[in-house]
Amino acid sequence: MAKEMERALITGGAGCIGSVLAERLAARGDSVRILDNLSSGRREHLAALEGAPGFEFIEGDLLDLEALTQAMHQIDIVYHLAANPDIRYTPGDPTDKDLRQNTIATHGLLEAMRAAGVRRLVFSSSSAVYGVSDRSSISETDPVRPVSLYGATKLASEALIGAFQNLFGMRCWIFRFANIVGGRVRTKGRTVIGDFIHKLRENPVELEILGDGQQAKSYLHVDECVGGMLHAVEHARSGLNILNLGCSDNLTVRRIADLVAMAMGLAGVQYRFTGGPVGWPGDVPRFRLDVTAMAAIGWRTVRNSEQAVVEAIGASLGAAECKR
Amino acid sequence: MAKEMERALITGGAGCIGSVLAERLAARGDSVRILDNLSSGRREHLAALEGAPGFEFIEGDLLDLEALTQAMHQIDIVYHLAANPDIRYTPGDPTDKDLRQNTIATHGLLEAMRAAGVRRLVFSSSSAVYGVSDRSSISETDPVRPVSLYGATKLASEALIGAFQNLFGMRCWIFRFANIVGGRVRTKGRTVIGDFIHKLRENPVELEILGDGQQAKSYLHVDECVGGMLHAVEHARSGLNILNLGCSDNLTVRRIADLVAMAMGLAGVQYRFTGGPVGWPGDVPRFRLDVTAMAAIGWRTVRNSEQAVVEAIGASLGAAECKR
Repeated sequence: MAKEMERALITGGAGCIGSVLAERLAARGDSVRILDNLSSGRREHLAALEGAPGFEFIEGDLLDLEALTQAMHQIDIVYHLAANPDIRYTPGDPTDKDLRQNTIATHGLLEAMRAAGVRRLVFSSSSAVYGVSDRSSISETDPVRPVSLYGATKLASEALIGAFQNLFGMRCWIFRFANIVGGRVRTKGRTVIGDFIHKLRENPVELEILGDGQQAKSYLHVDECVGGMLHAVEHARSGLNILNLGCSDNLTVRRIADLVAMAMGLAGVQYRFTGGPVGWPGDVPRFRLDVTAMAAIGWRTVRNSEQAVVEAIGASLGAAECKR
Repeated sequence: MAKEMERALITGGAGCIGSVLAERLAARGDSVRILDNLSSGRREHLAALEGAPGFEFIEGDLLDLEALTQAMHQIDIVYHLAANPDIRYTPGDPTDKDLRQNTIATHGLLEAMRAAGVRRLVFSSSSAVYGVSDRSSISETDPVRPVSLYGATKLASEALIGAFQNLFGMRCWIFRFANIVGGRVRTKGRTVIGDFIHKLRENPVELEILGDGQQAKSYLHVDECVGGMLHAVEHARSGLNILNLGCSDNLTVRRIADLVAMAMGLAGVQYRFTGGPVGWPGDVPRFRLDVTAMAAIGWRTVRNSEQAVVEAIGASLGAAECKR
């Protein structure tokens, strides 16, 4: 059965994940409208889409009700990826940045959807909602105890989505992302990969590693992240679907340092650990995701965490080459 | 060991729960400051405290940063009870009322605490954070899937509190309340008891009951609610303590109708059910709370749900008499 063309709105569509999603949707014939304030997204990420039939770009902020209302016109489904991409809280930062850009922005989006009668929403949440868990592998029904402002405001967004879903008869897919890597290189909210490449370019002999290097997290390649979302929108049929999206294994920060050094052709790099179990305040040092709910609807990752990271390192090094 | 006197701030301290808490704290020698915008609280509730040593009342809103900063001066512990008391969403209402009065207000409070170096927080959350569960009895580690804006914004507040607790080294007690009844009669956010009394005064022959009357919820008398909070602040020693606070049994709406009619001396009242399993959109029709975590620190309820409700009915009827 051929899928009917849909009119999709992607918030944060100029970002690293959103731009890949936009290309995938356009390639299958959907019309794509993007709302992005370009605070971290980049217009260049959308180069392949400019001039494509049905493609529209609106430069605007989710907190701007007028831009939101305009963006929602005649939309079938919203992919809500816009967020503050910087997971870490830096002392001295205002503490309401995530609240505004994640939670309040999500409420505004939901309200605009309700007003316009748009009933389907796909949301990029985060495994940061779980916080620090003693379970070997975290499933969607395990306790949510976020320890960062980022995780807390993602959970708050999830909760608002659930209430709107129930009160106003929406259908929603909430994905709790692993660390998404690969594809376009982030310019803000730098990943551990970008951090190591940057540091080793500055000093190829010694590498500072935050924490004790034993932090171990689940990774997922951006292409598989986008594929997983689209698969679940098709196959997860509840009113409210909450799904972990990541590899079921994990990878230590120390191993990532090894992989980056190897890819850069560096041998004998001395590691200097800042110490302690967490990389920064609010960091969740170790987790693995239980992805059996995604498996139950027929989705599997192709790459494991290490393969995803290796590919991302290659892309990052290549992209940096291109910039010279 | 005698407890040292503390300087307490109670937000929403002129409300039905807050005013009872204020009296209890003052009676044990704590100095009590109240911040309340009197949107649902009433100054008369504090009559017994006026002129007591250390008692202060600030009429102000949590969303007013200046009032908050003033209220936080030299405080040891904050009891944060202020909230939109009306759990139901009425179609046509703005959808951001709970977001503002629960979540954004809580963030402002946390930020004011951080700025002033106040490190202990007691928060009145709600069993509404659980949403509709298939468990016979809900424990604190069970999934949270709120189905109302009230429940969603309470969960959002919990999440922010957890993040601040972790990032800024606070100690916090989050209580997921059952339905709190008894004591002073609510003028806003009317309970099922007040609703039935009101309707039976208008028409003592027939009573409209929302839903099918089989909704069954956990109740707790306000005196035991306040006692439970104070007990846990003393005995629950984690950085972040999340505790169900209620009776472990539940009571049907139909049984409450019987109890109200009996207390009013009415026989043969005809019940007319509006039908359907839920009383209103966002209602959680059936739940029982697992309170073994409170039991583990030595707390037990004296009244069960029915006894709490019977006492509350008596107080409501008495209070109404007084008003004539």
